[in-house]
Amino acid sequence: MHIQPTSPPADATVLITGATGFIGRHCLTPLTRRFANVHAVSSRRIMPTHGIHWHQADLLDANQTARLISEVRPTHLLHLAWTTEHGRFWTSPDNLRWIEASLHLTRLFVEHGGRRLITAGTCAEYDWNHGHCHEEITPLTPATLYGRSKHALRLVIDSFAAINQISYASSRIFFMYGPCEVAQRLVPSLVLGLQAGRRIPCSHGQQRRDFLHVADVAAAHVELLTSDLQGPINIASGQAVTLRDIAHTIASLTGHAELIDWGGLPTRRDDPDLLVADVTRLKDELHFTPHYNLRTGLADAVAWWHSQKSNQAA
Amino acid sequence: MHIQPTSPPADATVLITGATGFIGRHCLTPLTRRFANVHAVSSRRIMPTHGIHWHQADLLDANQTARLISEVRPTHLLHLAWTTEHGRFWTSPDNLRWIEASLHLTRLFVEHGGRRLITAGTCAEYDWNHGHCHEEITPLTPATLYGRSKHALRLVIDSFAAINQISYASSRIFFMYGPCEVAQRLVPSLVLGLQAGRRIPCSHGQQRRDFLHVADVAAAHVELLTSDLQGPINIASGQAVTLRDIAHTIASLTGHAELIDWGGLPTRRDDPDLLVADVTRLKDELHFTPHYNLRTGLADAVAWWHSQKSNQAA
Repeated sequence: MHIQPTSPPADATVLITGATGFIGRHCLTPLTRRFANVHAVSSRRIMPTHGIHWHQADLLDANQTARLISEVRPTHLLHLAWTTEHGRFWTSPDNLRWIEASLHLTRLFVEHGGRRLITAGTCAEYDWNHGHCHEEITPLTPATLYGRSKHALRLVIDSFAAINQISYASSRIFFMYGPCEVAQRLVPSLVLGLQAGRRIPCSHGQQRRDFLHVADVAAAHVELLTSDLQGPINIASGQAVTLRDIAHTIASLTGHAELIDWGGLPTRRDDPDLLVADVTRLKDELHFTPHYNLRTGLADAVAWWHSQKSNQAA
Repeated sequence: MHIQPTSPPADATVLITGATGFIGRHCLTPLTRRFANVHAVSSRRIMPTHGIHWHQADLLDANQTARLISEVRPTHLLHLAWTTEHGRFWTSPDNLRWIEASLHLTRLFVEHGGRRLITAGTCAEYDWNHGHCHEEITPLTPATLYGRSKHALRLVIDSFAAINQISYASSRIFFMYGPCEVAQRLVPSLVLGLQAGRRIPCSHGQQRRDFLHVADVAAAHVELLTSDLQGPINIASGQAVTLRDIAHTIASLTGHAELIDWGGLPTRRDDPDLLVADVTRLKDELHFTPHYNLRTGLADAVAWWHSQKSNQAA
């Protein structure tokens, strides 16, 4: 049975934060397909996009946030902005600043007539001793400051939204890859290393993870904003693949599988064997089907990095 | 075995927030007994007290907080300030503002050389389906915005403190009574009603609760600040008494037990039968013994309300 997603109300005004981020930039076109009136905010730079009203504002500055919300008066808010600096975001004091900024943003959104709110959460909210992560069953005892911050924010907004009769859902995002990913992360470092013919030291690679192409992660967030689902929802593929599977698939596209040095890096002690999402809510309640599978998704990422290299060379 | 509490370091500078609040005002004298250099902040008014440096500042204003912390540079922070408006604090949007303000205060405290931090939590952090509340065993699934806000704050600060090597503990406060209590709450309304000869409608009164005199709650917070205990700690009597016990004890001091109309008010559906603290940590790790028992504590409260009435009459 295929159920058509709900149409967003004609008077909806959408605001997306973190609009130039890894997920945010992939939300823009899907948002313009579903909503007539889309505003995007970023502290960094403006990416002129057909059908998007751009705002440059730093949401860590309370005055800039207040100006933005009173100007845009969004009815629908997709809040993706957070600290994401590679390697640092797990322990950064900026997690506290983003909780402060996100609560302030939420209060202003409600005060100015907001109706539907989505915040971005993370698989790091789950207790990683449980490999299979179900929204309502798996214990939520996050080990990291980042995981705790996202969990704390959701706990508070969930209650605040109920009191103020705001429709609220929060995603739990697992592992992602795709165009514009930070080059130091797993997939880009494999793609770029293999393309360059470099030896790539890796851990044992038997860890199983749940990877989804970032364009699908973004599209699922736009569908979630459009829907009226409440509560937490995993956004992931639902499939556990080993890091070796990932690397072999990339190598089958780029060649030079022999350059991957499995066991050349130690495995982090806190690295769990298995992290995979239960995607029953995503499939059966949001009715979301990813566009990419692992092979077509990684092929897209490889092609994008190849095009970047060609652009640089040109 | 009696263990002497640790002496605070001679260079300690204490800051107490919420210093004119119900608990805060009872902390002032104990603080001056344990620390040489005590600063107190309140948004409302200044209560000149021997040995206390007073500051008037609104911690909901980020600029005022920044000025205060850079001026005082506390090494020890006892953070009690929060929204406490009777009947409203459970659901008030000010809970979000106090999370924002408390995280900002904590960041500034750490940036300015802070070493020891105490925040005030609540029995509302526990799942109230479990009557007996133990810090490490009882599930933490707070039902209210207030309970969730305090729980969320502790989760985040706990991780932030560990990363920044700050010594951190958070109290979980149960039920309190004593001088300066808001007149609409249980103990004052019984004392004032019985003194005035008014009929007092109550619920069935069989609910068992854990009550501690506010001066003991305050003294325990000062001992906690002085110690190096980490993590959550219940501050309570450890004894479950029925609301009928409370009322009968008050009536034995004021007379007119016949004016209490048990069952004259409906019992709230979400009112649990039992809420009592496990006080093993308080007794065996903090080595804290309350000054008052229920009878001497209620006698003190009755005497205080009587003195207020005499002052008004004079």
